[in-house]
Amino acid sequence: LGMIPNRSVFFISDGTGITAETMGNSLLAHFRNYHFHPVRLPFTDTPEKAHQALAHILATQAQEGVRAILVMTLVNSEIRKIFEDCGALCLDLFGTFVSPLALELGQEPAQAVGMARGVTSQEYRERVDAINFTLGHDDGLNDASLKEADIILVGVSRCGKTPTSVYLAMQFGIKAANYPLIPEDFDRMALPGTLALYRNKLFGLTIAPERLHSIRKERRPDSKYASLENCRYEVRLAEEMMHNEGIRWLDSSSRSIEEIATTVLQLSGIRKD
Amino acid sequence: LGMIPNRSVFFISDGTGITAETMGNSLLAHFRNYHFHPVRLPFTDTPEKAHQALAHILATQAQEGVRAILVMTLVNSEIRKIFEDCGALCLDLFGTFVSPLALELGQEPAQAVGMARGVTSQEYRERVDAINFTLGHDDGLNDASLKEADIILVGVSRCGKTPTSVYLAMQFGIKAANYPLIPEDFDRMALPGTLALYRNKLFGLTIAPERLHSIRKERRPDSKYASLENCRYEVRLAEEMMHNEGIRWLDSSSRSIEEIATTVLQLSGIRKD
Repeated sequence: LGMIPNRSVFFISDGTGITAETMGNSLLAHFRNYHFHPVRLPFTDTPEKAHQALAHILATQAQEGVRAILVMTLVNSEIRKIFEDCGALCLDLFGTFVSPLALELGQEPAQAVGMARGVTSQEYRERVDAINFTLGHDDGLNDASLKEADIILVGVSRCGKTPTSVYLAMQFGIKAANYPLIPEDFDRMALPGTLALYRNKLFGLTIAPERLHSIRKERRPDSKYASLENCRYEVRLAEEMMHNEGIRWLDSSSRSIEEIATTVLQLSGIRKD
Repeated sequence: LGMIPNRSVFFISDGTGITAETMGNSLLAHFRNYHFHPVRLPFTDTPEKAHQALAHILATQAQEGVRAILVMTLVNSEIRKIFEDCGALCLDLFGTFVSPLALELGQEPAQAVGMARGVTSQEYRERVDAINFTLGHDDGLNDASLKEADIILVGVSRCGKTPTSVYLAMQFGIKAANYPLIPEDFDRMALPGTLALYRNKLFGLTIAPERLHSIRKERRPDSKYASLENCRYEVRLAEEMMHNEGIRWLDSSSRSIEEIATTVLQLSGIRKD
């Protein structure tokens, strides 16, 4: 095998740089035989900061002996210009797409920086409320919280309910409560009474027993809880119960948090807009 | 005032569509006098699904009497082609930037779909661990958890510690613990002993008393806790204590969660790569 080349990629933004990094990582994922070294330059919102950033880029280009790759989300066109002529490969996310949009909409684009969602907007407050709700009701089951929830995720312990509910709150402003299915529920083979009242909010997650075993044994090695046999038993009964109760469910085994959350939204139809 | 036009924007992806939506919202934020109506078409990963989506787009164009706006993150170029000739404004995020990158890197881009970060990767497991850690240690203060934390956020109740720590975990895989500064700490005017051991991990958040008052009174109206006078008192003493203890801090008042989290990373230098 040859050497895998190293290459610096600069994420430059006048805001947090999260859009630049999300988009940049999606682009870089198309190329597998490279080691990309991320350099984040957020809050590059004045010509002075842009020139400082530029000096860093030029020094890196000289050191690595190849063009730097810049992924830019810069609202201000003057600040964009500072980077355009430095010889780097410029992926100018705003410059490229804002002009055709402006033409289509018949409107001049705003040039002000700091265009992140306002912290006083309704949408923003809903997101913060949803995060606080979800953190306050992880594994909770009182009636008031279930009534307030937009969705209630059910499934065996460690099947992915918690990260999914956090992502639903953070990304989509959805109040997601969790209910772990535990051995007592399987003995009864019925949902607890409180939960049955909110059947239309329930959404199930399941997981391959082998994957559950590997997740649980990291936390509690050599426990009955983590044994493959017990994982098989719990998953089988959980699926049987969800089937009997008419709860729609999804297998989380080979899906990322983002994929699980997006699929839950799509299947349950609860997305707020 | 004239009518504000309504216009459908389609976020089309063969994956979750989160990149398309993040990037699309950043672009649309340049134009303030429009009501954009988001239509999400995730998991559009076969020609059949693409043709279904296309039918939906064509019907919308006919109904609204204007071109639809498409924001696309589609890895497969054949699926992209299905949308290119429908008369809509196509913002083709991958098509536009992958070719110049391929040329620069001297490598053919991968054409496979499902390029989200693998759920078995080290990075992915670190993110899930960080989320579980953060949820398990919100407002927690035992020694084992503080030892494991990458960062410990301190500040008065409701100043933004919880959403920030969740975001740090979710987006960046950072284990963030919280410690709320409470009246007992102000009486002593010193950090609790356990916390003092981890001084190098501490990072403070503060907030304008007026904003704190408005947040707290939504939760507990007419309480002493939420009164402007008490908010002023707590914020003043918290800032005094952080100053005395040499803790770096940040004002969260007019920053979004993303901005607070990114700034904390930048100032503390703890980002893992």
